[in-house]
Amino acid sequence: MGSKAKKWESELLRMLGEIREASREVSRLSSSVKKKILLDVALALKKETRRILRENRKDLVNAREKNLSRAMIDRLTLNPKRIDAMVQCVRTVAGLSDPIGKVTSRWTRPNGLRISRVSVPIGVIFIVYESRPNVTAECASLCFKSGNVVILRGGREAYYSNQALVAVFEKVLTRYRLPKASVSFVRTLEHKAVDFLLKREKDIHLVIPRGGESLIRKVVKMSRIPVIKHYQGICHVYVDRKADLKKAVAIAYNAKMQRPGVCNAMETLLVHRDIAKDFLPVLGEKLREDGCEIRGDYWTRRILPWVRSAQAGDYGHEFLDKVLAIRVVPDLLSAIRHIQTFGSAHTDAIVTQDRRAAQIFTEQVDSSSVMVNASTRFSDGFEYGFGAEIGISTDKIHARGPMGLEGLTSYKYIVEGNGQIRT
Amino acid sequence: MGSKAKKWESELLRMLGEIREASREVSRLSSSVKKKILLDVALALKKETRRILRENRKDLVNAREKNLSRAMIDRLTLNPKRIDAMVQCVRTVAGLSDPIGKVTSRWTRPNGLRISRVSVPIGVIFIVYESRPNVTAECASLCFKSGNVVILRGGREAYYSNQALVAVFEKVLTRYRLPKASVSFVRTLEHKAVDFLLKREKDIHLVIPRGGESLIRKVVKMSRIPVIKHYQGICHVYVDRKADLKKAVAIAYNAKMQRPGVCNAMETLLVHRDIAKDFLPVLGEKLREDGCEIRGDYWTRRILPWVRSAQAGDYGHEFLDKVLAIRVVPDLLSAIRHIQTFGSAHTDAIVTQDRRAAQIFTEQVDSSSVMVNASTRFSDGFEYGFGAEIGISTDKIHARGPMGLEGLTSYKYIVEGNGQIRT
Repeated sequence: MGSKAKKWESELLRMLGEIREASREVSRLSSSVKKKILLDVALALKKETRRILRENRKDLVNAREKNLSRAMIDRLTLNPKRIDAMVQCVRTVAGLSDPIGKVTSRWTRPNGLRISRVSVPIGVIFIVYESRPNVTAECASLCFKSGNVVILRGGREAYYSNQALVAVFEKVLTRYRLPKASVSFVRTLEHKAVDFLLKREKDIHLVIPRGGESLIRKVVKMSRIPVIKHYQGICHVYVDRKADLKKAVAIAYNAKMQRPGVCNAMETLLVHRDIAKDFLPVLGEKLREDGCEIRGDYWTRRILPWVRSAQAGDYGHEFLDKVLAIRVVPDLLSAIRHIQTFGSAHTDAIVTQDRRAAQIFTEQVDSSSVMVNASTRFSDGFEYGFGAEIGISTDKIHARGPMGLEGLTSYKYIVEGNGQIRT
Repeated sequence: MGSKAKKWESELLRMLGEIREASREVSRLSSSVKKKILLDVALALKKETRRILRENRKDLVNAREKNLSRAMIDRLTLNPKRIDAMVQCVRTVAGLSDPIGKVTSRWTRPNGLRISRVSVPIGVIFIVYESRPNVTAECASLCFKSGNVVILRGGREAYYSNQALVAVFEKVLTRYRLPKASVSFVRTLEHKAVDFLLKREKDIHLVIPRGGESLIRKVVKMSRIPVIKHYQGICHVYVDRKADLKKAVAIAYNAKMQRPGVCNAMETLLVHRDIAKDFLPVLGEKLREDGCEIRGDYWTRRILPWVRSAQAGDYGHEFLDKVLAIRVVPDLLSAIRHIQTFGSAHTDAIVTQDRRAAQIFTEQVDSSSVMVNASTRFSDGFEYGFGAEIGISTDKIHARGPMGLEGLTSYKYIVEGNGQIRT
């Protein structure tokens, strides 16, 4: 046991050593070389589709043997269409503008010192994620494009798929005489490997966990390295008394039903009491037809008697399913108070034609994204025009909300003088 | 024991509840009100000088009873001059421009969604620090100015001084009908209070530890809340072969001797071998005269035979004293390699008239501040023109280097549509 433990530890330490060197090279690559490499990776992914699918099949066989859930197997499954989407994603990232080396600010001090703030890569980024293998290609491309070395630790159920995807990156990197460690993959399946890496604050500069809440909580608890994450997306739509009814129905329906299992889907609907009688029957019928379960408060059930009674735990709960909690509120401030109490500061929306109400809502709701007359489902890096997304943050520091390439950069100050000393 | 533990815990929970309410109020204060309040605080601090000094004396009596070191007692001691400096600092912060509510970016998507990114306060910031009571007034002002609620936990040796300073803030806040909790102070001396708070990630959004390395390591280990910090300042000056000799001597002397006990003082000097014979005797003599101990490598000692031999541990060591490690290097890249290996990514400087050398140095040295022909001592929020400084970060995320008011802000996305849904 002792010597086995030593083996994976020394493997990881060797990896970290290679990463240190790789990081210096990757951080200094020119924009054009990074772009060329990613375009080559896209080509190679396409060309190696069959090999990747073969490796993916190994994971699928194991998954069935282990009786994994259908949802999990679905997330794990690759097919030519999904690989094409991956290829497209890598191509998109290749074409984004390079976020590194930009002078974001420049000024001169009275003593003549010229100070500039220049964007630099963060360094080494550790991504801990669960079953979906497409995260591998997405995160590897985004980190590489921003001059960072990525350490990928996917779920063990996607081990062969991930390894095959990383092999494609490695092949292209080698062709450009870059170290393979520029895109690193944790090969050991040892459980403690993650904990071990989360303590290497000298070697790793940022951790991004992507997956369920329990994974994220575990990572935050163990890590001595900064973590960017969101635990939950408990998104609200508030339909104000001055809402346009048609828009309100479309937005609420879309926010709940377009993809109920994701973090920017609506979980609780708040409705102003003055509009509830007109609004709820229309929306309720539409949701009922499409198999959405509703849990409403007393006032909701006065209007929609067929609705199940909401329990205390239903507000602030992330259903990630065709289930919706509804509450009728007496005014705008009660809606805001509800969101402040039960929300997770991810994305919350107001539907209203009243500009003053919209202003109060956007000022007082302190969520990473606050929407006016738009579906919460838009809270997303692609939809915001970032070209890609490494994750969504509900933290208050560094990056908040959808996090694109800019979120993968840091900066340094360059100070130029001609002999200044401090007195 | 059990019921005593319960008492401080419930006190802290009550404080956190009050802070939640206070945070909503403080985050929405107008620029002019925040400015007026801070100017009133400055006045009140001045007016209450005698009371503050009286409370400070209690701490000093305790400190002497406990045989604290002279350095510690010095840091703890307040006098009218030091209080004036504090007053001046609060006044400066009052006059800085408000960092909140700024639209830092705005764009429209093809589907018509208008997205803007607006600066907001981080929320609740927990400052854990050691003996110097001036940190209390500085941090309280900076956090308040940026719409944040601060939780102050100073060293127990400064308990009475800190309490007196916080009381001044509370008095002014009350006059403006703001909750006292807007500037909060951890009153219990219970050791476990800090650990308890470091786990309240729902209530506290950022932790800034200020003090020695062991304090900071403890905070990072316990915290589930993001921490911004620097462990050490192992700053280097590299004197290139093309350095202006006079500037090099002035900068190296200033970087080491102007204030040896601070994080941006030089700890190791690197000298190009072609200039060592001309440079080292001049600097060496100056340092020797002023009582600075030098620890040099073989080549240094060939030129300065009176110098003590450097041991392995001397490079990369933070002396925080009149002690300097010197190493002669064969070229620029060796100097960079040395800094990459032994540095702490805080502040490193090159002295050279060669623009190409300066460029390579600023590109390859990935420290929060990289200086050309200037003393490392300039790496400081005031010197950079930020008006004040809450700390220096060697982290790669959020704020890096000297951290002023801007570092105390987050942002949110406001998305305005006219009924958009996602398809």
